[in-house]
Amino acid sequence: MSTPTHISVDGIADLVTGDAVEERYRTDRSGYIAPGRPEAVVRAHTVEDVQAAVRYAAGAGLAVVPRGAGTGLAGGAAAGAGSLVIDLTGLNRIADISPGEDLAVVEAGVITADLDAAAAEVGLRYAPDPASAAISTIGGNIATNAGGLRCVKYGVTGDSVLGLSVVLADGTLLHTGRRTAKGVAGLDLTSLFTGSEGTLGVIVGATVRLQPIPLRTVTIAARFDDVETAAAATSRVLAERVRPAIMELLDEASTRRAQDHLGLDGAASGAFVVAQTDGFGADTEAQIVADTFRTFTSRVDVGSDPETVERLLAVRRAALPALEALGRPLIEDIAVPRPRIADAARAVTTIADSHRVPIFLFGHAGDGNLHPIIVVPDDPTADARAEQAAADIFALALDLGGTITGEHGIGVLKRRWLAKETGEESLSVQRAIRAALDPQLLFNPGKVF
Amino acid sequence: MSTPTHISVDGIADLVTGDAVEERYRTDRSGYIAPGRPEAVVRAHTVEDVQAAVRYAAGAGLAVVPRGAGTGLAGGAAAGAGSLVIDLTGLNRIADISPGEDLAVVEAGVITADLDAAAAEVGLRYAPDPASAAISTIGGNIATNAGGLRCVKYGVTGDSVLGLSVVLADGTLLHTGRRTAKGVAGLDLTSLFTGSEGTLGVIVGATVRLQPIPLRTVTIAARFDDVETAAAATSRVLAERVRPAIMELLDEASTRRAQDHLGLDGAASGAFVVAQTDGFGADTEAQIVADTFRTFTSRVDVGSDPETVERLLAVRRAALPALEALGRPLIEDIAVPRPRIADAARAVTTIADSHRVPIFLFGHAGDGNLHPIIVVPDDPTADARAEQAAADIFALALDLGGTITGEHGIGVLKRRWLAKETGEESLSVQRAIRAALDPQLLFNPGKVF
Repeated sequence: MSTPTHISVDGIADLVTGDAVEERYRTDRSGYIAPGRPEAVVRAHTVEDVQAAVRYAAGAGLAVVPRGAGTGLAGGAAAGAGSLVIDLTGLNRIADISPGEDLAVVEAGVITADLDAAAAEVGLRYAPDPASAAISTIGGNIATNAGGLRCVKYGVTGDSVLGLSVVLADGTLLHTGRRTAKGVAGLDLTSLFTGSEGTLGVIVGATVRLQPIPLRTVTIAARFDDVETAAAATSRVLAERVRPAIMELLDEASTRRAQDHLGLDGAASGAFVVAQTDGFGADTEAQIVADTFRTFTSRVDVGSDPETVERLLAVRRAALPALEALGRPLIEDIAVPRPRIADAARAVTTIADSHRVPIFLFGHAGDGNLHPIIVVPDDPTADARAEQAAADIFALALDLGGTITGEHGIGVLKRRWLAKETGEESLSVQRAIRAALDPQLLFNPGKVF
Repeated sequence: MSTPTHISVDGIADLVTGDAVEERYRTDRSGYIAPGRPEAVVRAHTVEDVQAAVRYAAGAGLAVVPRGAGTGLAGGAAAGAGSLVIDLTGLNRIADISPGEDLAVVEAGVITADLDAAAAEVGLRYAPDPASAAISTIGGNIATNAGGLRCVKYGVTGDSVLGLSVVLADGTLLHTGRRTAKGVAGLDLTSLFTGSEGTLGVIVGATVRLQPIPLRTVTIAARFDDVETAAAATSRVLAERVRPAIMELLDEASTRRAQDHLGLDGAASGAFVVAQTDGFGADTEAQIVADTFRTFTSRVDVGSDPETVERLLAVRRAALPALEALGRPLIEDIAVPRPRIADAARAVTTIADSHRVPIFLFGHAGDGNLHPIIVVPDDPTADARAEQAAADIFALALDLGGTITGEHGIGVLKRRWLAKETGEESLSVQRAIRAALDPQLLFNPGKVF
């Protein structure tokens, strides 16, 4: 790919080139670092900025790497030599919040928590809640089809996206979708761009669904002897027709580590589950959850006042920070059919032993999305062992009828596993669609496919 | 398009050609009749039958028209000269119902109500409930992304589709999606094929999400002075954070006509609304619905025993049969932003007057999806007037920020309106995707695009 010696994009003032391009643009929260340094970063403030940057890049033979807050966990936004980054964080207006329609129209760079806060002023909320909501952008959430804790009841990001504005490879602006709850006019381009990880165009805006804030939320936490019992208890809850808003599980090792991190000396051993029920049936559902848990353990707590809720959620919240304090974590992201959660947990323990790397497991028991966290030891062969363990975890997910990524995406890190999951026919269809929209492979080359 | 004089597909026994091709294959429930007669109908019993038929058609220069039960309302399955119909109703096995995973694996020709009945045996249900569920196929529902009454709480067909099996233009079998609740590996091909109305491939099977049958359902019906008041009352219910499972509205004329049809002489005048709440909060929510309605009208009924529920739902159920008894109905299918329902209802009355055709309005107040029904009079200029009224209704939907089709699809009948809604950029992207998957335009040519 040829690199222009001087970069200047007509009409764009906020442009950084050469050595002034910050190191952070080469990476994201995955820890992956792209080879080389991007040629330039356009900090877009308008849709026209994005269009001009895309046209410039296409003409100059540069790859376009769209970027929100850089909180991705698969290397999707990491930009290297020969690329032009479009930083969308300055495109951050909330254009409309419509209580009657229960929707918002936003630019891509809006921080997800800011959208939620703006919606809260009229009694609504943006339901998807990725762990990064306080620092990630709605555009990034859409590009990766981000998940979160509340998915089990309220769906993933894509379930809240009604329409998109996207800058295409020739610089034209495409609008997809609609403002109405239902609509079936033509192919579903909105879903196609959602989760496409920057490979089909630059998402510059979105119309998203909002939901009423539930009047009542009840939290239930419980300790179980082991992760198998915890998994069985969560399955039983769902079989009782309860749909908790969240239902999180930590294995024994994560629970112990999170408690230590919180200074909870002498706290109970075993695996930890925390669930929340919400809405008009919250109390009834919470009672069923608690009763169900009590058939497996005597250690069940229920609360709805803010102080108790914080206490019950603390262990779950501490899980990742506790592991980050321990060393360099590789955050994996498999999903398995719910009845296989216990099998997955057991197998992950075996994988940890066989490669001599510590692996902690927590995740979303309500939908089978598990995050095995490999904490990479500090020795010469540790990286290689961690990589082998990760490969075993991907293979395990597929063996159990699951997926290699429940909510983080393929990015760079899982590329070579994609065909193993989707099959060659699917990959060839995906490539054909991409080539139809972006024949030059301008957008995020080397990612996903 | 050249027509072979003799048609025989290797390995396919159940093949009908020439004059033996039944008239019904030229049409669907929309009343549209395709010009000419299909050259052949392959009644598929296996996926291999579909693959052989597609390969044969591609070689013989015949168009492929996939067909389920033929209950579509936009002419999408109507097949004419130069085409080979693949009738999928014989591909009707339910391969798997998994209570732990809350999913089913089915062939495309399974009748939607049969799937729901099979799920009910293990306490689950298939939530999407198109009015045609008793006679339509799951494959047809997916091809049109069918809606239904319960969409307001449980989503449209697409929200319940986890994965698909699709025969592509070269005869290969593609599997999309997954069995897990979450998953973001690669482009979302499942959503792309859902609602594509047979233009990208032949859907031969699906993995669909099931949900627990709610233990409790409460029904609330009310009469309002006029449709504006009824619309305002339904909006107020949603603003009270209630999410009814269904919330249906009939304007004054439809209500009167439905009552007459049921022989309810002397029944109350005005517009009719019926709602159902379900789940663990059903009683609380029903109370709020009833209280809210009572701030607008004194005529509110609540019930949960089967007999009362049937009585409360009867007027809604009678709406379409009552109009069919009156003459030939054109069933329109717009969706508007919810706060504009009353505006839409008023405007439809004006359209009816100006073109001197009776138009009755009912629909899904919970999501703004309205069905204006034009009952075509029996006079020489009636068809032309009805067509002009339909055009005005589409224009109205777009003026109000809505869509020309909430749940029935584009098919043949709304083709020339598609670009007006989606814009030329979108149409060109849709065409590019279609050309990438089906360069010969083998599948359902002349539909949608």
